Amino acid sequence: MSAPLAAIDVHSHVYPGRYMSLLRARDTVPRIVARGGQDRMLILPGEDADSSTSVGRPIGSEYWDPARKIAFMDRHAIAVSVISPANPWLDFLADAGPVATEINEDMETLCAASGGRLYGLGLLPIRDPAASAAELGRIAGLPHLRGAVIGTTGAGKGLDDPALDQVWAAAERHGLMIFVHPHYGLGNEALAGYGHATLLALGFPFETTAAITRLILGGAFDRFPGLRMMVAHAGGVLPYLAARLDACVAGDAHSPVRLRHEPSSYLRGLYFDAIGYQAATLAMLMSLVGVERIMFGTDHPFFPPHVENAELDSTEWHSPAVHRAVLRELGPQAEIAILNGNAKAILCIDLST
Amino acid sequence: MSAPLAAIDVHSHVYPGRYMSLLRARDTVPRIVARGGQDRMLILPGEDADSSTSVGRPIGSEYWDPARKIAFMDRHAIAVSVISPANPWLDFLADAGPVATEINEDMETLCAASGGRLYGLGLLPIRDPAASAAELGRIAGLPHLRGAVIGTTGAGKGLDDPALDQVWAAAERHGLMIFVHPHYGLGNEALAGYGHATLLALGFPFETTAAITRLILGGAFDRFPGLRMMVAHAGGVLPYLAARLDACVAGDAHSPVRLRHEPSSYLRGLYFDAIGYQAATLAMLMSLVGVERIMFGTDHPFFPPHVENAELDSTEWHSPAVHRAVLRELGPQAEIAILNGNAKAILCIDLST
Repeated sequence: MSAPLAAIDVHSHVYPGRYMSLLRARDTVPRIVARGGQDRMLILPGEDADSSTSVGRPIGSEYWDPARKIAFMDRHAIAVSVISPANPWLDFLADAGPVATEINEDMETLCAASGGRLYGLGLLPIRDPAASAAELGRIAGLPHLRGAVIGTTGAGKGLDDPALDQVWAAAERHGLMIFVHPHYGLGNEALAGYGHATLLALGFPFETTAAITRLILGGAFDRFPGLRMMVAHAGGVLPYLAARLDACVAGDAHSPVRLRHEPSSYLRGLYFDAIGYQAATLAMLMSLVGVERIMFGTDHPFFPPHVENAELDSTEWHSPAVHRAVLRELGPQAEIAILNGNAKAILCIDLST
Repeated sequence: MSAPLAAIDVHSHVYPGRYMSLLRARDTVPRIVARGGQDRMLILPGEDADSSTSVGRPIGSEYWDPARKIAFMDRHAIAVSVISPANPWLDFLADAGPVATEINEDMETLCAASGGRLYGLGLLPIRDPAASAAELGRIAGLPHLRGAVIGTTGAGKGLDDPALDQVWAAAERHGLMIFVHPHYGLGNEALAGYGHATLLALGFPFETTAAITRLILGGAFDRFPGLRMMVAHAGGVLPYLAARLDACVAGDAHSPVRLRHEPSSYLRGLYFDAIGYQAATLAMLMSLVGVERIMFGTDHPFFPPHVENAELDSTEWHSPAVHRAVLRELGPQAEIAILNGNAKAILCIDLST
């Protein structure tokens, strides 16, 4: 079943050419190696220690060629994709300001040449918060970019690091979206032994959940109430735990948390992709945060990451899940909101071209 | 709002007197210390390194006196509680067979004297799988016990350790329920700085989720299809991630996982308490696993753990959440299933006494 409407995909990744060159020149993870006549990308923690033939993932032009992105979109009735550089971004560079600027300009060029099919999120030299704030100012001047994607480590101390306040202030001032995405996994030591599946399935959402919780409990959304943030993979698992978090904070008489509102109320101010894989997850997310905060996504071309010689096609999971969740929760009139209406409004996407 | 029906509480904890004595005699965590004229219990990782006055939690007779348990039950229209020893059980003892037998006999004595108000789950000398299997045989002969509670570490290598197969075989053979409960937290390093709230709210469900996922992916439920297992706190977060887990396993061409069915299908064979804190969580769980696998619980007297000089009353969260979730999902006729009907059938509880 393909998408019944011309969708906007807000979670779609690229590795821009300049980024690929950067990874090819490296000799530690993240890096790209040639193996058996094929480029393989090693980005996950510990992947370079894996001596099996399955090390890393094959990486081909689906990761950087806009024609292949658009062919995928055509096949699944995706009108527009908001493409973002994939993990691990520039987390591994301390002084990434200049390369971030160059890659963001490349992203703008690529989107501008797409005939209205591609918009983008840039990346930030996040280990340097001042440079990141300045880069957001530049992104605001690039007509096809709508914000930036970041990981969960910030400048090295997590997203609740006060040093990042200048980044949030810049994003708020420019009305840009910050897309928070996992990369490292959390709890990996307890998930080992079953391939990368458990890291991706559980460690990624655990990581996202911890990062967003730190942002909430640290008061970022009290200090920057206009900060727009989109959380990957249907919010990690914070939606399922939202009221448990409220109860645990309320029940701790010695809590250092000082917020204006209950922790879960900030969750309802975030944005989410619809990458939940099942209708029950999306129905829950909808009932908790409202249909107007959820936007269709595919995670293309990543998912599934390790199938070789197969068409990577995460859309098979996500469009039907959205469809069933909407039907279950809100009736058919809400489907268009998730598939394109919300993204049009929230990210100022023009579908008329 | 209190429970509208005479409920059965399947998640209610005690520290039996013999267990208290064991902890008083210890000088490392887990232990009980006297401080400011009050006993305080230190059970969480790192609690003994906390030098603030909030170290540990005050522990009084609500943790061991059946009269106080029953007073709590009376106040909230709870007809029967299935009490279980609280964490960390006997995880810290390598040779816990004899003390497990004694404590389980104490549990039986306590329940037998309650006039039909208390049933129990025993504990196991889990670091010794053979002794644990033998102890399950003894538990099966104790008329008020219905199974045993365990943590997530098993004999030290997690719940997918093949050495535990004899434990699962014994539980299956005797028709006993195994209640899997968190204690250590997972991802704690990424959750620090906000008191114990984040460990309890997030680290506990992460830990539970990793443990149950390992059991599923390791094939325990293929080898022991009759194994009855109840997962604490509405299943951790595995329900929210169930289809993502399926997709990640299916998408890994090098996966070592060899199961008869999709991972999520095993989730639907487990039992769950209703400790989700919000109607949206329970509605999702119901839609995923069916109302007949969910049983009311309170986590009494633990929650909230750190409020001093306050009435501990987790029922305030759980009864209304069940009520609203059931109304939302299935209509009022299903409420009795969660509040007592399922527990009556699944745990053979007689409400007529």
